[in-house]
Amino acid sequence: MNFKEQLKTYQDIINKELAKKCNQNKCPEEQLNKSMEYSLLAGGKRLRPILVIATYKLFKSDYKECMPYAIAIEMVHNFSLIHDDLPGIDNDDFRHGMLTNHKKFNEATAILAGDGLLNNAYMVISQDLKNTSTQKNAESTEKVQNINLKLKVFEEFTKAVDRMIAGEYIDTEVEGKEISPNELEYIHKNKTGALLKLCVRMGAILANASEKDIESLSNYAEKIGLAFQIKDDILSEEGDEKKLGKPVGNDKARKKCTYVSQYGLNGAKQKLQELTNKAIEDIKEYGTKAEFLKELALYIANRNK
Amino acid sequence: MNFKEQLKTYQDIINKELAKKCNQNKCPEEQLNKSMEYSLLAGGKRLRPILVIATYKLFKSDYKECMPYAIAIEMVHNFSLIHDDLPGIDNDDFRHGMLTNHKKFNEATAILAGDGLLNNAYMVISQDLKNTSTQKNAESTEKVQNINLKLKVFEEFTKAVDRMIAGEYIDTEVEGKEISPNELEYIHKNKTGALLKLCVRMGAILANASEKDIESLSNYAEKIGLAFQIKDDILSEEGDEKKLGKPVGNDKARKKCTYVSQYGLNGAKQKLQELTNKAIEDIKEYGTKAEFLKELALYIANRNK
Repeated sequence: MNFKEQLKTYQDIINKELAKKCNQNKCPEEQLNKSMEYSLLAGGKRLRPILVIATYKLFKSDYKECMPYAIAIEMVHNFSLIHDDLPGIDNDDFRHGMLTNHKKFNEATAILAGDGLLNNAYMVISQDLKNTSTQKNAESTEKVQNINLKLKVFEEFTKAVDRMIAGEYIDTEVEGKEISPNELEYIHKNKTGALLKLCVRMGAILANASEKDIESLSNYAEKIGLAFQIKDDILSEEGDEKKLGKPVGNDKARKKCTYVSQYGLNGAKQKLQELTNKAIEDIKEYGTKAEFLKELALYIANRNK
Repeated sequence: MNFKEQLKTYQDIINKELAKKCNQNKCPEEQLNKSMEYSLLAGGKRLRPILVIATYKLFKSDYKECMPYAIAIEMVHNFSLIHDDLPGIDNDDFRHGMLTNHKKFNEATAILAGDGLLNNAYMVISQDLKNTSTQKNAESTEKVQNINLKLKVFEEFTKAVDRMIAGEYIDTEVEGKEISPNELEYIHKNKTGALLKLCVRMGAILANASEKDIESLSNYAEKIGLAFQIKDDILSEEGDEKKLGKPVGNDKARKKCTYVSQYGLNGAKQKLQELTNKAIEDIKEYGTKAEFLKELALYIANRNK
C-alpha cells in the first residue's frame, strides 16, 4: 500500500469508529447530537488519530488497543474548532467549505456541542478504562500494567488539553498586537503542538515503548506540529479558496501575526522545509517501519488544503 | 456541632482544597487562570462537594478518599455556570452579586475558562487515579478494588455531565415556549438533577456501599435536586435581590417556564414541601447518622439565597 492508500485506509477506519462511538454514546437530545455529529463526522484529515495509530504500530500491531484514545483526541480537536469559530472568539462562518457549527445551528447549540464533545472524549476514555479493568481473560499482571499505562495516558491527555486551551487563549489575546517570533512559536506550541505531541506520546506509551522512543517521537511531533501551523499560514496567504473551503487572506485583513507576516512568504517556506527535514531525522532510527510517519511529515508540508 | 457549624466547616474545607488544586494545576496563562479562579473561588454554597463528602461519611470516616471527586464536581458546576451566563446562552450580567465571568473578563476568556474548568475536573480525576494506581504501601487486592470503584465513578461522572449539558440545551430550546409539567421536570432532572444525583452516588460508590444503599441515596438526591430547582424558581419570583445577588423577576420578564409559572407560587411551595418530606423519608433508615443529610434537605427548602 502506498502512502495515499494507507492514509485513506486509516481515515476510513477512523470515520467508521467515530460514527460508532457517536451512536453508542448518543446524548439524550437529538438536535444537540446532530450538532456534535455535524462537526465531528464532517471529515477532515484525521491527522491526530492517525498519528496515534501510526505511532502505536511502530511497536505493536494490534492498534485496537489505542483506538479509544485516537477517537477521544479527534473529539477534543473538534470541540476546539467549534469554540474557536464562535462569534466571541474568531467569529468564522466557514470551515472545510461548510458552515461553522454556530452558523449551521445557533450560538447556544454550538457552545454546548463543543462542551459535549470535550466531555464525550473523557466518556470514551472512561469506558475503555472500565473495560480494561473488568476484562475477564487477561493475566492479572498484564492487566495491571495495561491500566497503569492507560492512566498515565489519561493524565497526559488532560494536561495537553489544558495547554491547548491556554494556547487558544493567548491567540485571542494577541490578536492585532505585534508579537515576537518567540511568542508566535509559544502560541503554536500550545495551541496546535501540545495535542499533536500528545498523539504520538499516547501511541508510544500505550504500546509500552521505552522512554527514549517516547522522546524521539515527541521531538518528531513537535516539529511537524510547528510545520503544520506554518503550512496553514502559507495556505491562508496563497492557498486556493476552493480547495481550502474558507476565504484566503483573512489573516492579513485581521492583521493576525503569522509565520508569513513574521518571516515573509519565502522565509516561512524555508522554515517549513527545515522543520520537515529535521522531523524526518528524528525518526530515522526506525528505518522503513517509520516510512508512513516520514511520508506524513512530507504530506503536512506539501498539502494544498 | 450543629448543622450550620458543620456546613460552614465543610465549606471551609472545600474552599481550601479548591484553592490548593488551582494552585497545583495552574494553566500556563495567568489571565485565563484568574478568570477560572474568579468563578471557582467566588464562594457559593458548595452543595455538590458537600453532598459527596456527607454521603461518603455515612459509610466511612476518612473522607480524603472522595475529596478529588468532590473538587471535580464543583469545577464542573462552575464551568456550567460560566457557559450558561454567556451572551449566546442566558446573557446574564450578575451571579451571586458579582459580575458574571464574561462581564468581568470578556467573552472569549469566559468561553475558554469554562472549557478549562471542565477539563480541569478530569485532570483532578486523572491525578487521583494515577496516585491510586502507583500507591506503594497498599495491599494489592485493596488497590485493585479501589481502582475499580474509582473507574466506575469516572464513567458515571462523564455520563452525568453529558446529561447536564443536554439539560442546558433543552432549557435554551424551550425558552419562551409553552411546555408541559413533564417537560419541565425532564429539563431539571437533567440540568440540575443529574449532577446532584451523581454527587451522592460518587460518595456511596467510593465508600463501597451496597447497591441498595446507592439506590436509596439516589432517590434522596433526585428529590432534593427537584426541590432545589423549585426553591430557585420561588426565590426568583419573591426573593430578596440583595441576598440573592441577582435581579428578581427575570424569569417572569423572559416568560420562562418555571415551577412558579406552572403551578403558581402556592402550588410550587406545596410541591417543595412534599419533595423535601419524601427525600427525608428516603434516608430514614440511616437514623442519626444521616442527620446532616436530613438538615441539608431542609436547608435547601428554607434558604433565602
